[in-house]
Amino acid sequence: MSRVAIIGAGPSGLAQLHAFEQAGLAGADVPEVVCFEKQSDWGGLWNYTWRTGLDEHGDPVHGSMYRYLWSNGPKECLEFADYTFDEHFGGPIPSFPPREVLYDYITGRAKKSGVRQYIHFDTAVRWIAYDEARGTFEVTVESRADKSTRTEEFDWVIVGTGHFSTPNFPEYPGFSTFPGRVLHSHDFRDAGEFAGKDLLILGNSYSAEDIALQSLKYGAESVTISYRTSPMGFGWPEGVSEVPGLDRVEGRTAYFADGSTRDVDAIVLCTGYRHHFPFIEEALRLRTGNQLYPEKLYKGVVWTPNPKLMYLAMQDQYYTFSMFDAQAFYVRDVILGRIALPEPDAMQADIASWRARQDTLAGPMDDIDFQTDYLRDLMKPTDYPAFDLDLARQHFATWEHHKEESITGYRDRSFASPCTGTVAPLHHTPWWEELDDSLATFLGSGRVSGDVN
Amino acid sequence: MSRVAIIGAGPSGLAQLHAFEQAGLAGADVPEVVCFEKQSDWGGLWNYTWRTGLDEHGDPVHGSMYRYLWSNGPKECLEFADYTFDEHFGGPIPSFPPREVLYDYITGRAKKSGVRQYIHFDTAVRWIAYDEARGTFEVTVESRADKSTRTEEFDWVIVGTGHFSTPNFPEYPGFSTFPGRVLHSHDFRDAGEFAGKDLLILGNSYSAEDIALQSLKYGAESVTISYRTSPMGFGWPEGVSEVPGLDRVEGRTAYFADGSTRDVDAIVLCTGYRHHFPFIEEALRLRTGNQLYPEKLYKGVVWTPNPKLMYLAMQDQYYTFSMFDAQAFYVRDVILGRIALPEPDAMQADIASWRARQDTLAGPMDDIDFQTDYLRDLMKPTDYPAFDLDLARQHFATWEHHKEESITGYRDRSFASPCTGTVAPLHHTPWWEELDDSLATFLGSGRVSGDVN
Repeated sequence: MSRVAIIGAGPSGLAQLHAFEQAGLAGADVPEVVCFEKQSDWGGLWNYTWRTGLDEHGDPVHGSMYRYLWSNGPKECLEFADYTFDEHFGGPIPSFPPREVLYDYITGRAKKSGVRQYIHFDTAVRWIAYDEARGTFEVTVESRADKSTRTEEFDWVIVGTGHFSTPNFPEYPGFSTFPGRVLHSHDFRDAGEFAGKDLLILGNSYSAEDIALQSLKYGAESVTISYRTSPMGFGWPEGVSEVPGLDRVEGRTAYFADGSTRDVDAIVLCTGYRHHFPFIEEALRLRTGNQLYPEKLYKGVVWTPNPKLMYLAMQDQYYTFSMFDAQAFYVRDVILGRIALPEPDAMQADIASWRARQDTLAGPMDDIDFQTDYLRDLMKPTDYPAFDLDLARQHFATWEHHKEESITGYRDRSFASPCTGTVAPLHHTPWWEELDDSLATFLGSGRVSGDVN
Repeated sequence: MSRVAIIGAGPSGLAQLHAFEQAGLAGADVPEVVCFEKQSDWGGLWNYTWRTGLDEHGDPVHGSMYRYLWSNGPKECLEFADYTFDEHFGGPIPSFPPREVLYDYITGRAKKSGVRQYIHFDTAVRWIAYDEARGTFEVTVESRADKSTRTEEFDWVIVGTGHFSTPNFPEYPGFSTFPGRVLHSHDFRDAGEFAGKDLLILGNSYSAEDIALQSLKYGAESVTISYRTSPMGFGWPEGVSEVPGLDRVEGRTAYFADGSTRDVDAIVLCTGYRHHFPFIEEALRLRTGNQLYPEKLYKGVVWTPNPKLMYLAMQDQYYTFSMFDAQAFYVRDVILGRIALPEPDAMQADIASWRARQDTLAGPMDDIDFQTDYLRDLMKPTDYPAFDLDLARQHFATWEHHKEESITGYRDRSFASPCTGTVAPLHHTPWWEELDDSLATFLGSGRVSGDVN
């Protein structure tokens, strides 16, 4: 029997395990699947940890999740087509849930699938190399509890380690003498740490936007957001402002490109993440920035230089969980022989045509259309259940509009499920006033899901 | 020609390069030596970085160094016998220098030796395995700038990566909901971050002692040190107190084993470090706690299961730089064939006798005598210049006594060099009042070393 290694038991790795499990339940002859997970539990980024830097075994902390994180897009745009929110929670819930609710949902499906048995927890992959002679991968792993290492042979490797774990962390003049904390958003955990402080945030994307708002919500004195290219330009609440690029800091004074200055107590770099695979030999290693259609990945997943290697979820993401599902079903069907890969030239031409279109994209709505079409393309040859992609696409457009209307109010809106049609109820409390992000409070007292744990 | 890999260009790796260079200058036939250093510059821990967690290339930050760190032992006890403080600074300097001064000293010798040419900077070792058939090591490294990986063959490998980089980081109940920063001393950078705060420190060794004092010195409102086994019991300045073990935190309230409680704003775990070699295959990997004579290391350096592998500086340390030198000269002479290793049984018996004595040690003075004897044993067969080990040993005893007398005042004392006899001058400012830790201020205005940079 052939052997498949899945690296990581986060959303994409779990999607892959689920995809194989579904095929097995339907009677397919499924290969031996082994999933290696560095953390002691599943859920990837959604498995919140208070730790920063290095973890209890001395490896880099995977998680970039912080307290009080609420979904920043409608949950209807990331819904599993084969395990709906209605099914998991036994009824409709609001459109913008906090982390714990989404974690409960993702792991709820994994529990139902029964895939935990395939996961080796606390097991870090140290090195992956391809043995040309044998035509197999050598995967060296370390069992972190007893620090034993072993090398196993696999016919296929699927990398599902994500790309929001390794900070892109530039240095600015004066950081080495700044008298306060300088951190990357990867290490941001609790906005409360900055209560009463003047905070400087560098960046102009989702992390900067959300950490600025969280910090103000939980008591920061002021938040200054410094952008390099362009401001986000939202209607910020009082206390948040945007300024041009940081030039330098001197003592606790930040100097910006327009000559203005601010005295600040802490600096958070929301400068993005890197695709980082230090455990994969160079010939097998994806190199890309955060983009919608990375090079060398046929259908966004098959590593063309060696098509027995797959990468999940390496794209810049509007769609998330549903896209991982579509990818996982596609990858599974390649491995099961249900989908025949074309010749290298044809794969390359297909990638090239997507990337040519990528070059023409002129803004978020173009991006969303592009990724919607990508999902459509990916789902066509598999049996992943259809859902109303046009509605999901429309939701993204509406959501972008809501954000323009009110950056503190867009999470109070409601959307209809593209899977079930269910219209989400409004949350009992406006997001800007809700300081409690627990599942229990979100679902309302007395209302508990069958899968809450 | 045989090839030697040195992993790390910190104090021990630089000592090893220096040792080989000295032999070459004296006419010996020296093997090809290649040093791999993850950081972009040399000095190991002494190469201060403002970064915490992951570095600019996404790897764990090596450094645990913080601002305002001054030597906590007399510099006379760590002096290079073949490159004295007098030689480097052109005259006597006080006994307890700040970091920048020690960095200048270590790297000053490395500059004089001309060993920089052997170091590949920004190059991380990803995997070391031994090829039994070929009798050589396969060392896979990554050039971090372009992310290229390569595997090179070596006859000898010397691990000099230190053991103060990977935190031992236990969890206590309540950490995941504590509304403030919880960090390990590895990530402590600037005591000023905690000015005006109530700080909780866990631990009872050097880091706890020093971070408590630094934090108070730079404005912390209060520092509570919680010990698991026993208090340090120094005559703490007002504002520092010791309490028994932490039981849990609830909100920002810490509960201790004696039933007492404290409300705190941040928690620093000074809970030590791990010997962590994720880049070395299991059969070659040293496993030890922080002790004076680890298992399986003949003369504290030769990896007995495969004596072509060496580990430097893996001991609990009273002596530091001078001990690394003695080890490096010993290792060099094994590799040059000047020292013949005995049979495995004899190596094992020698280790066993040291470890039997280790079991009898009853306190710091016993430890110091033990490590002094270890250095003597190590230096005997090599040409590392002799120095007055009895005086160094005596200094440690005096220093321990000074600390008992005054934990804020012991750094104002002066010692005589065991290499040159030079008596250190007193520093111009008492340590407890000196907030400026720069080399320029330490050496006094107008007085600059030839090697400053």
